Amino acid sequence: MDSDRIASFIACIRPLLDRNGVLEGDAVGPARDRDATEVPGTRPLALLRPRNAAELSSILSVASQTRQSIVIQGGRTGLAGGARPREGEVAVSLERLRALSLVDEANATIDAEAGVPLELVQKAAREANLYFGIDLGARGTATVGGMISTNAGGIRVLRHGMFRDQVAGIEGVLADGTVVDSLRGLPKDNAGYDLRQLFIGTEGTLGVVTKAKLRLSPAPVTESAALLSLGSVADAITLLAFLRTRIGDLLAAFEMMLPNVYEGSVAHGGLQPPLPFGAAIYVLTDIQGRMPEADTARFHAALAETIEGGLVQDAVLSSSGREFHGLWAIREGINDYIFAQGEACGLDVGVPLAGISSFLSDAERRVCAIDDRARVFVFGHLGDGNLHYIVQTDNADAVTGAVLEAAAKAGGTISAEHGIGQDKREWLHLCRSEADIAIMRRLKRALDPAGILNPERVIPNSTAHTQ
Amino acid sequence: MDSDRIASFIACIRPLLDRNGVLEGDAVGPARDRDATEVPGTRPLALLRPRNAAELSSILSVASQTRQSIVIQGGRTGLAGGARPREGEVAVSLERLRALSLVDEANATIDAEAGVPLELVQKAAREANLYFGIDLGARGTATVGGMISTNAGGIRVLRHGMFRDQVAGIEGVLADGTVVDSLRGLPKDNAGYDLRQLFIGTEGTLGVVTKAKLRLSPAPVTESAALLSLGSVADAITLLAFLRTRIGDLLAAFEMMLPNVYEGSVAHGGLQPPLPFGAAIYVLTDIQGRMPEADTARFHAALAETIEGGLVQDAVLSSSGREFHGLWAIREGINDYIFAQGEACGLDVGVPLAGISSFLSDAERRVCAIDDRARVFVFGHLGDGNLHYIVQTDNADAVTGAVLEAAAKAGGTISAEHGIGQDKREWLHLCRSEADIAIMRRLKRALDPAGILNPERVIPNSTAHTQ
Repeated sequence: MDSDRIASFIACIRPLLDRNGVLEGDAVGPARDRDATEVPGTRPLALLRPRNAAELSSILSVASQTRQSIVIQGGRTGLAGGARPREGEVAVSLERLRALSLVDEANATIDAEAGVPLELVQKAAREANLYFGIDLGARGTATVGGMISTNAGGIRVLRHGMFRDQVAGIEGVLADGTVVDSLRGLPKDNAGYDLRQLFIGTEGTLGVVTKAKLRLSPAPVTESAALLSLGSVADAITLLAFLRTRIGDLLAAFEMMLPNVYEGSVAHGGLQPPLPFGAAIYVLTDIQGRMPEADTARFHAALAETIEGGLVQDAVLSSSGREFHGLWAIREGINDYIFAQGEACGLDVGVPLAGISSFLSDAERRVCAIDDRARVFVFGHLGDGNLHYIVQTDNADAVTGAVLEAAAKAGGTISAEHGIGQDKREWLHLCRSEADIAIMRRLKRALDPAGILNPERVIPNSTAHTQ
Repeated sequence: MDSDRIASFIACIRPLLDRNGVLEGDAVGPARDRDATEVPGTRPLALLRPRNAAELSSILSVASQTRQSIVIQGGRTGLAGGARPREGEVAVSLERLRALSLVDEANATIDAEAGVPLELVQKAAREANLYFGIDLGARGTATVGGMISTNAGGIRVLRHGMFRDQVAGIEGVLADGTVVDSLRGLPKDNAGYDLRQLFIGTEGTLGVVTKAKLRLSPAPVTESAALLSLGSVADAITLLAFLRTRIGDLLAAFEMMLPNVYEGSVAHGGLQPPLPFGAAIYVLTDIQGRMPEADTARFHAALAETIEGGLVQDAVLSSSGREFHGLWAIREGINDYIFAQGEACGLDVGVPLAGISSFLSDAERRVCAIDDRARVFVFGHLGDGNLHYIVQTDNADAVTGAVLEAAAKAGGTISAEHGIGQDKREWLHLCRSEADIAIMRRLKRALDPAGILNPERVIPNSTAHTQ
């Protein structure tokens, strides 16, 4: 009967798309079963590949009328199970929405369809002597649509903000097929509700992005990085506050690595360690500016003070583009190193700076109490309080709960940038009130009354465990 | 019967507030009848003054249950009738929510209750050597709550963004009394839907802001302004593009005045004209930076090129704080000058830069065709395409329609920063699709099913005129 139902759904859809728009059976291929987590999903009943908002509108309209659940897939680099198919779902991929406009230099914007990978946006901006403010490791695969729907962050948030801040306009489709065109992209526009917000960070549960107008900024000329070792996490936070005061207009990244992560990434990458092993914490920070000599002089002068004052123990400063990228290679190599250690439970918390030291000791204590053989890897975007907390353990579920509880207890969030998807849903109550979750349900019901769009994501079931 | 109904509503409310929380009859006072427009409103049936979110929650909960319409009032500086009472409404003022926290220097934020005027936020930031990115003429009166609910803009948007971009967190109350606490204020937080967006720019129709956590940035050290005359609006737009390329990292305002506005403001203020009368357009631009000498040198060098190349006809550069404020006094005096000319119809459009010249001639042609004795005053934030278009005319309604149509035809918005309120509702269809408006209705129904919160604002009635 389920197969009858899907056959009849596909029969309705087939005339709406071209022959490459509907794939079934083996043609779907195994890659569509999962996102970038190690959790296995299930083969979607079919894979639909619309070419534009109108085709997506037709698909969602039929799905709403027939109550066929849809999972939306972008670059499938997600880490929370949002794009991982569940039983009974049809997948809709935006991979054929690949148009990227020329840069609009007068307005410093570019129009990108949902399936365009981040890296192509960055490249187009650079070629116009402009800059796109979002950067992260999956830049070659993660797509504009997925990154908007998860409000992606990455390494430049302390300077350029989240993906939300880069979105001047959106074209998208709601669950019932309504097409929203908010692509006008004026810097000031208060004529009615801002419908872009329905698509940003809602993980495809309220609507699906098909195209976006993205903001670009003047390209930085100065690129200068420093790798530093310090005596404690608290010292690193003191350093951040000092640099904010002194060179807040230049600071563009402030990343931390605990020593096992630094040492592991260096060794795994076969790199020469720029700083000796054995410090309590390593920080990689860099600046972006428009006056290379003056900027670098201010950066180095500020750092010199922190070294003389004993706050920073040791420092390596890049003096060329090659050295700049050499220092970043250690940070970018972390994922490869950790993946090579075997299956791990990857958490992504955000904690107010004032609470980070106590969060780290609290989380470590909780993890040890559950599994005293657990290996913990902590690194991340200290500049915005976002820590990637990775644990190798035989008891992933209990460890996940323990670390997320520690983050919430410290006034933090259980997901700084990865989102909630399917995988963090049961813990959402740790950092969102029942009232908040009830409002999310009201919005979901108002915009997707049939409940067909990325169902069972983000919002916990009413019957979910609450404390 | 109406008076019975209100008496019974007040009887329910009175025990929930203190004795200064409920004003009736003459105690309400005439100031509550209107916002900053000249359109007369009506005396609200009562004035409620809650002291916190819990009291506001009680009020709205009773209002929803008894279907009592509520109009929310902040500083009443609005220019679209949002806070102007309609027949049968009870006013709720947030004037007693005046707490302003100390600046959180580590996170560069400050917590302000809804009733705090903008100027106090600016002052607190300055005292901590930080800066709040929003500035506008009504800074002494306009309040944080009202400015969030209208997503206020002003003169620094091209540098710092709209009010939306300054909001790290919100506490607010929905129509049914649900209290939303999204004050955590982490720079990165993707744990579920971002409920701040329900309050920003929705003009109090979905919920009411009671408190906000506002983002601050490093205080600019450099303040340097230039008043310029040019041969055409097109030349001013060319200049803007040039300055963006050359000193885009410093540019902090780019304001335009048509000659009658410049001349009128100078004469009305009894000022010495820094530049001779008679140019086609005047531009006031300034920079914000952290290295006064180097920044000013770059600013002046860029301007020198435009003067040598003939793009800029004449220029006065400020060389002291006094001169900086002297040039700005002309821009800030415009409103006084125009108000002194008598009643006028004030429009606030946003147009893509490429369309501004043709918008201006199209709008002038349309206005002349309706009223050839109309006086037109145009000035505004050219840096973000936002023009204040003020017309003295006997035929305000037709002129309003004509100018708004011209803006929409140029790909623009009928309200760049003032919002829709009651006064622009019937024209919303000019720049928003029927689909967009239908979605706004769905959101309004989902969050305010009794329709009691700022009713008859923003969203047109279903029966409204559409084209």
